[in-house]
Amino acid sequence: MAEGQRSGPVVVTGGAGAIGSVVVRKQLDRGREVRVVDNLSVGRAEHLPPPGTGKFALTVADVKQPELYSAAFDEATEVWHLSANSDIRKGTKSARLDLEEGILATFNVLEEARRHDVGRAVFASSSVVYGYPTVFPTPESYGPLLPESLYGSAKLAGEALFSAYAHTYGLRAYLFRFANIIGPHMTHGVLYDFFEKLRSDPRRLEVLGDGRQAKSYLRAEDCVDGMLLATDVTDQPVNLYNLGTDDRISVKEIAEKVVAAHGGTAHIDYTGGARGWVGDVPQQLLAIDRIQQLGWRPRLSSAAAVDQTIAELLAERSRSG
Amino acid sequence: MAEGQRSGPVVVTGGAGAIGSVVVRKQLDRGREVRVVDNLSVGRAEHLPPPGTGKFALTVADVKQPELYSAAFDEATEVWHLSANSDIRKGTKSARLDLEEGILATFNVLEEARRHDVGRAVFASSSVVYGYPTVFPTPESYGPLLPESLYGSAKLAGEALFSAYAHTYGLRAYLFRFANIIGPHMTHGVLYDFFEKLRSDPRRLEVLGDGRQAKSYLRAEDCVDGMLLATDVTDQPVNLYNLGTDDRISVKEIAEKVVAAHGGTAHIDYTGGARGWVGDVPQQLLAIDRIQQLGWRPRLSSAAAVDQTIAELLAERSRSG
Repeated sequence: MAEGQRSGPVVVTGGAGAIGSVVVRKQLDRGREVRVVDNLSVGRAEHLPPPGTGKFALTVADVKQPELYSAAFDEATEVWHLSANSDIRKGTKSARLDLEEGILATFNVLEEARRHDVGRAVFASSSVVYGYPTVFPTPESYGPLLPESLYGSAKLAGEALFSAYAHTYGLRAYLFRFANIIGPHMTHGVLYDFFEKLRSDPRRLEVLGDGRQAKSYLRAEDCVDGMLLATDVTDQPVNLYNLGTDDRISVKEIAEKVVAAHGGTAHIDYTGGARGWVGDVPQQLLAIDRIQQLGWRPRLSSAAAVDQTIAELLAERSRSG
Repeated sequence: MAEGQRSGPVVVTGGAGAIGSVVVRKQLDRGREVRVVDNLSVGRAEHLPPPGTGKFALTVADVKQPELYSAAFDEATEVWHLSANSDIRKGTKSARLDLEEGILATFNVLEEARRHDVGRAVFASSSVVYGYPTVFPTPESYGPLLPESLYGSAKLAGEALFSAYAHTYGLRAYLFRFANIIGPHMTHGVLYDFFEKLRSDPRRLEVLGDGRQAKSYLRAEDCVDGMLLATDVTDQPVNLYNLGTDDRISVKEIAEKVVAAHGGTAHIDYTGGARGWVGDVPQQLLAIDRIQQLGWRPRLSSAAAVDQTIAELLAERSRSG
């Protein structure tokens, strides 16, 4: 691919979210023109550069309505599709949510990429496509892929669409299966939930499940660095990588860290059961040797990533009162 | 599961098609009440029992419009979702086709199953979910699943939705990854195409690709027998089986058989290239030991299945003039 094609504008859907805003910052740092498409339902404009900043533009639009953001794809050479329903549990209550926010939105983004001849398309997939795997750490070649949640089915369907578009229409697809990604600006996930719960009742922290769910947690900056590296150095029709750390941490340990950071007085109540909720996959550890072979390493382990994120969330809360 | 739940009405989408009509006949033979939902765009009413036949009903409706066929799910205990865009190549021309006929239709069927508390749901998936695998014969555990066609992406998305519904809402999912299924009443596929081509020009048979594409061909009756056996004897949340033969046959051999059956005078022209068309997966052989362990065997090998189907197609053509 010619250098010009690689260096054109980058469209980032969900660019105002916790991961997207890191992508935006790092792409701008690299001198790329960045166009965010985000409906700001979860993401926030304040996570983005101020309006009028040189090579940056924000289109406030829902990815389900391509007519509202199609212009952002003009001349673009790359799209990073990060928008999604980010709350797995919501999908259990409304099956249509993940269909629309996940599958249909992904289809719309790919159609815009095809219509505008965008050469490269990046997709934020997830470890949940593995369902409840029998192999840990789980490699990219693991099968069968039988997701347990509607969120997971939407991620696997998204991967499948990216793969088909790559082979049918010639774009390059980059699929990343994420461990739990954490960092500032989070609006969901176990750490966020624990902070919210302690805000409403500082004496008691309810933990869904028995606390023994153990997963790998990766900092958003590390995650985005891995994605950037892969898009820099690999160029197959479909490029698939797990992104996580090589360790994991239990929900019990996280709960204890959060309680300690809040003064250590809250009582931790476990609701019991191996799974936190319907569709929860209680064990998660991804094989990361494939992305490591490109030269990537996570700067922080799961435990260190949790520690840093707790410190940031405390600081965010103290600033916002 | 109680016997009563197993023996209630069976809904069959795409029941007027080449595979669906075999399901209908065999389920009626077993004494089950059968309700077909088919828009008759590809399937034909004459493949079904006559209207008014005891335990049989046909609702002429598109699976994308659940309001038109929802009543067929009343009291049903099982749904076999077989309807789809059956022509892989069409999907290349219109990306939306497989999204709507594949993914959205499957979602609608699963929603009806959930709303009506249907306990068991069967899905006709395909070997194309494997993309172009590196392992032959390809086992159910093969990964990663990177389909090459939009049709394949719709099948993988369908599997993912069935899996999520099984784990989220408690239905039992039966997923079958088909080799090439052949038999009477076909309206697509290599055998059908060859017959159509020789009808329009008896002197010349154009073959897409170099003829060395080699795949496994399974008779529709054998295929349905395998599905029935699996639904009889397995009862996991998700039950996944390849269905094929343990041999394969090349497109060149098929072309020569078809030409011989037409008098042997037509000249065979190969368009060249390893793949017949964009999205074609030129090699396909499924590992079938998992379904064989249940006691199933295909009665006919790929070559014998092709021979029998050629004879049937010749007879069909001579009847229809």
